[in-house]
Amino acid sequence: MTKEINIGLLGFGVVGSGVAKILTEHQTDLQYKLGVPVHIKKVVVRDVNKKRDTDLPKELFTDSLEEVLSDDSIDLIVEVMGGTGFAKEAMERALQSGKGVVTANKDVMAEAGPELLKIADEKGVDLFFEASVGGGIPLIRTLEDGLASDRIHALTGIVNGTTNFMLTKMKEENMSYDEALALATELGFAEADPTADVDGLDAARKMVILASLAFSTEVQLDDVYVRGMREIKDGDVELAERFGYTVKLAGAAKKDENGIEVSVEPVFVPDEHPLASVNNEFNAVYVYGDAVGETMFYGPGAGSLPTATSVTGDIVAACRNLLLGVNGKRKHAPQYDRKMKTDDQKFASYFHRILVKDEVGVLTHLTSLYTNRQASLATVIQQAKDDNDRAELVFITHSISRQQHLDIMEDLKNADSVVDVISYYRVEGEN
Amino acid sequence: MTKEINIGLLGFGVVGSGVAKILTEHQTDLQYKLGVPVHIKKVVVRDVNKKRDTDLPKELFTDSLEEVLSDDSIDLIVEVMGGTGFAKEAMERALQSGKGVVTANKDVMAEAGPELLKIADEKGVDLFFEASVGGGIPLIRTLEDGLASDRIHALTGIVNGTTNFMLTKMKEENMSYDEALALATELGFAEADPTADVDGLDAARKMVILASLAFSTEVQLDDVYVRGMREIKDGDVELAERFGYTVKLAGAAKKDENGIEVSVEPVFVPDEHPLASVNNEFNAVYVYGDAVGETMFYGPGAGSLPTATSVTGDIVAACRNLLLGVNGKRKHAPQYDRKMKTDDQKFASYFHRILVKDEVGVLTHLTSLYTNRQASLATVIQQAKDDNDRAELVFITHSISRQQHLDIMEDLKNADSVVDVISYYRVEGEN
Repeated sequence: MTKEINIGLLGFGVVGSGVAKILTEHQTDLQYKLGVPVHIKKVVVRDVNKKRDTDLPKELFTDSLEEVLSDDSIDLIVEVMGGTGFAKEAMERALQSGKGVVTANKDVMAEAGPELLKIADEKGVDLFFEASVGGGIPLIRTLEDGLASDRIHALTGIVNGTTNFMLTKMKEENMSYDEALALATELGFAEADPTADVDGLDAARKMVILASLAFSTEVQLDDVYVRGMREIKDGDVELAERFGYTVKLAGAAKKDENGIEVSVEPVFVPDEHPLASVNNEFNAVYVYGDAVGETMFYGPGAGSLPTATSVTGDIVAACRNLLLGVNGKRKHAPQYDRKMKTDDQKFASYFHRILVKDEVGVLTHLTSLYTNRQASLATVIQQAKDDNDRAELVFITHSISRQQHLDIMEDLKNADSVVDVISYYRVEGEN
Repeated sequence: MTKEINIGLLGFGVVGSGVAKILTEHQTDLQYKLGVPVHIKKVVVRDVNKKRDTDLPKELFTDSLEEVLSDDSIDLIVEVMGGTGFAKEAMERALQSGKGVVTANKDVMAEAGPELLKIADEKGVDLFFEASVGGGIPLIRTLEDGLASDRIHALTGIVNGTTNFMLTKMKEENMSYDEALALATELGFAEADPTADVDGLDAARKMVILASLAFSTEVQLDDVYVRGMREIKDGDVELAERFGYTVKLAGAAKKDENGIEVSVEPVFVPDEHPLASVNNEFNAVYVYGDAVGETMFYGPGAGSLPTATSVTGDIVAACRNLLLGVNGKRKHAPQYDRKMKTDDQKFASYFHRILVKDEVGVLTHLTSLYTNRQASLATVIQQAKDDNDRAELVFITHSISRQQHLDIMEDLKNADSVVDVISYYRVEGEN
């Protein structure tokens, strides 16, 4: 019988230090749950001499991945460095050497998850990644175990805390995009380079992980239709509010007999839909199953301790499996071939905001463009004209295909009376 | 290697037929996940000849529990009969005979959970009960696994669908208690005898299960402070609305250095708190952990297929363990002794609604009663007097102990100017 479990921790940043803190402070509880103590045996960092606020002894820190991978007393590798190149290599080598891996790395899991899971399966070791999506919310486990018997046909939600924080400030405190980003950076919610967050790539990676799991297939990053926060134009947030919507950067994944669609984009959420009131850095994911119906999981989407809770939850699960000798028994080969929908198989309502010359007949002409594309309109609003004799039109369609929407966009751009298609949004939350 | 897994199903009502439906319709998926087929081998019912709308062959049905328990080819017993006496005995005998048990039975788990879990541990078999709380929401699994590494200090939520449906109708459609109950009965949300639901016992049982698990101790039904829906008086729902609150029958469990408190009672939830907008038969439970902070889990709290999803989720987990030969390895002995708080260790704001004689000085007199008990008031409202020269007073306190609240109630009842203490509520959601 194993007397203790030793962990090799890769990285000691925001999440890594949180993991160390939880393992230390909850040691008695964890030992009660597992029957044996769990120790951090080594921590791999770039600079061993950097000053760190931690109770871990200095001699645990090393800059040699080799030292940790070749240490036979280390049972489990916990990867919390982030990034792709070195992190992916480290995880791959750890799995190859027969060590289980717990990771918080959404970048690696979105880009190389199937490949790494395959190695884990072959080597008979665990690869757990709860912390890669939804910070402290146990989403992966819910999809794998809690709803294991159900058939999931849709997921919708807010999976990026940074942009949700920004959008909350833009709506509630009328901040501009730049002001909101500055505040998010100041408070530590946004990274020095916020590109992955604001352009939707971070959320897209998380949706790849969730959709692959929910639909038991291998969704790829290129499959995700991504539009970032910078597509939100001045006045859009207020305009949404006037029509009873809240702008959210939402991830959505749906499956039907035609295939799968996955997207990340700014959408209009009806104010009465609970997603509209998920604020600040919180995340929330709706899961729709054939049998269970609608369920929702909400919690902190980022932060040191919340994310570390998911990592240590995985550590507990991996330790249990190690102690029972059943690690690596969960097979990950996807059940279904990857089949993505085409744009004429994706349906939604759309919100179009258009700047036009204020001429006689412009409304009739533009509505005819919708009619020509067999799109029916739910709402048509013409705003007062500005000083340059230009007016804004707002159209909200009934359900149309994305192809129809794209065709109409093209038609509008080509229309003489249209100065600019200012912005457009899918209307979410009508699952 | 096991070639298939055989289930003995006890009961074929709303949940049982849902389980059969899911096992049949999702058989391919389940077989993919587990590697072997899962069959219902026998169904124990009271009346074999009753007409049933099911694809299961008639010869599977039997009225003999004995026949199922003595069938060595049956690996797992799924108890979905409900009730306590026979169901508890059946579960106990199944465990004693070395068969794993999956149950949806909150009554048995609340009253005899520790006893049955002890037998399961001794016999080395699994006893899973996800469906006993929160219908389709995977709450038990989240507490046991997802948040395994965290220390949970509070749980708050709506865990009874029937009463939440009624309260939603009472608020949104101004129905009376009787009208709402009639509608709930008509729609199948309320049972013929709704006592357990409306008097809070059903919710109390669920809170016993959740609190025991969250705090790793053995909370007993008698430990729960229970007040049911009938404590809600005419006009309370509207009055709450005027003050920015929604009345919900909420379960709450908290732990601090003094011990544990668990309650089920109608409370005032601030309208801006997300619990206030959990409507109809839906359930939602907030879980507060030291490390993770605030998380929330939402879904259908009742219904055939949602509850059956939780049951079949447990079946999948139990089958996995059986196939790996690691069933019954999760030890359930509680980590902590049961230690409940006294009433002077439980703190909250309270809302008091009082009918008084409209005399000079009544307000001064009554507020002095609060002062005498060291309770400070946040809000004092005197309503217009009625035709009998009586007026209603509303007091909302700052945080006081339940003991202070009880003392003040007593003082008020003894005051000459008080005609009646109409109703009182704890103010929830300020965790």
